[in-house]
Amino acid sequence: MEINSVQNERVKLWDKLKQKKYRDETGRFVVQEKHLILEALQAQLLETLIIRKGVKNEFPLEAIEVSDPVMKKLSSNVSLNDYIAICRKSDKKPDKKEMVIVLERVQDPGNLGTIIRTAYSLGYDAVYLSNDCCDEYNEKCLQSTQGAIFHLPVIRESMPDIVRELRKDGLTLIATCLREASMLRETAVPDKYALIFGNEGRGLTEETIEASDLRVKIEMDRFESLNVAAAAAICAYQFRYGRK
Amino acid sequence: MEINSVQNERVKLWDKLKQKKYRDETGRFVVQEKHLILEALQAQLLETLIIRKGVKNEFPLEAIEVSDPVMKKLSSNVSLNDYIAICRKSDKKPDKKEMVIVLERVQDPGNLGTIIRTAYSLGYDAVYLSNDCCDEYNEKCLQSTQGAIFHLPVIRESMPDIVRELRKDGLTLIATCLREASMLRETAVPDKYALIFGNEGRGLTEETIEASDLRVKIEMDRFESLNVAAAAAICAYQFRYGRK
Repeated sequence: MEINSVQNERVKLWDKLKQKKYRDETGRFVVQEKHLILEALQAQLLETLIIRKGVKNEFPLEAIEVSDPVMKKLSSNVSLNDYIAICRKSDKKPDKKEMVIVLERVQDPGNLGTIIRTAYSLGYDAVYLSNDCCDEYNEKCLQSTQGAIFHLPVIRESMPDIVRELRKDGLTLIATCLREASMLRETAVPDKYALIFGNEGRGLTEETIEASDLRVKIEMDRFESLNVAAAAAICAYQFRYGRK
Repeated sequence: MEINSVQNERVKLWDKLKQKKYRDETGRFVVQEKHLILEALQAQLLETLIIRKGVKNEFPLEAIEVSDPVMKKLSSNVSLNDYIAICRKSDKKPDKKEMVIVLERVQDPGNLGTIIRTAYSLGYDAVYLSNDCCDEYNEKCLQSTQGAIFHLPVIRESMPDIVRELRKDGLTLIATCLREASMLRETAVPDKYALIFGNEGRGLTEETIEASDLRVKIEMDRFESLNVAAAAAICAYQFRYGRK
């Protein structure tokens, strides 16, 4: 199949997926990098492969060939993509819930994606996002996950629902905050736990801190300031591996 | 003093500081966020404060007032800044060299800045950058440091010079890599050490791995992939605080 016109109805629909609103409505999103497309394929999330006319199809599935103007319309980078994939969002549920990461109103897609990547690499079972986090299917976020988002359950709910669900499942809720918190190194690791991180500038909400079972802070020499993805990496590693 | 024309010679020079070449030539750089300007002022690096005409000067030093078109020319964001500061690069030397972080050809300014911020918060003495790292005075990098770059010595040299200097000072050079490396948790912490991290996609060069005294890798469950700023946070914390 071949599409040459930027006025084509399917092209218009695909193009709309750059906006969160249409990703939410359709449950679909766009992947623009070849190695990420491969990850999406392996995770069986790839629905439509779009290829620039004249480029050899290196994927083991049929592609829709498009003209350069169509590819240009769909690409968000300056240079023309050879491939673009339309994928469906994963509805993967966690196999178990023993170690999870929860993010509350994290706004930077690079931070969000980096944390999903860290959680997957360190063997966490899922990442929970409060509804007011930035969209995990944002292109920058997808890129920062390096594909981890296609394999790890990422669940978006209201913060009260997340707290209720994880508590019901018997996880200890651990808030990261500066006030009245025990030092990370001295905190015993519970059997099952959720590490909760907040907004880049404002941290966790008071409600979430109050709803937690434990408060933890990272030892620091000065500045009392860490990027949230760096803080999440430190805590996630410490709880998973740093202690026996 | 007041400048109204975008053709003014000083405006043209300031504007050129958006380019690395001119930052290198002049030893000057631009700071665009109010809280970062305050950090630069505290670190005594602020040389010229530029203020949008009509805005109240909240800083304890005289400012040059500029018209909106001038401020627009100097601003790299879409909205107009109220303040912009021209600062000089710090030539701060480390007071001591017991714990340092070394980055080799790190390319992403967000990663570079985040690592400088982490190093400062966790009490490291300096960050060394190989000459082929991205520019630490890039706007995105400055923003990611959250001002830590104004307080912590950041030293840019060739990689062989960095290795030579740190070895002379008696630091144990610790390369982070996957091959023939001991696990982070099982690595004894030397008295004085340099943690070395490499490029986002390609890691450390073979020469740097060979020149190191130890090789360390982070325990992972799967994926064998962490963002370099996340990896640096995990290692920096583990060496500094995670162990006794």
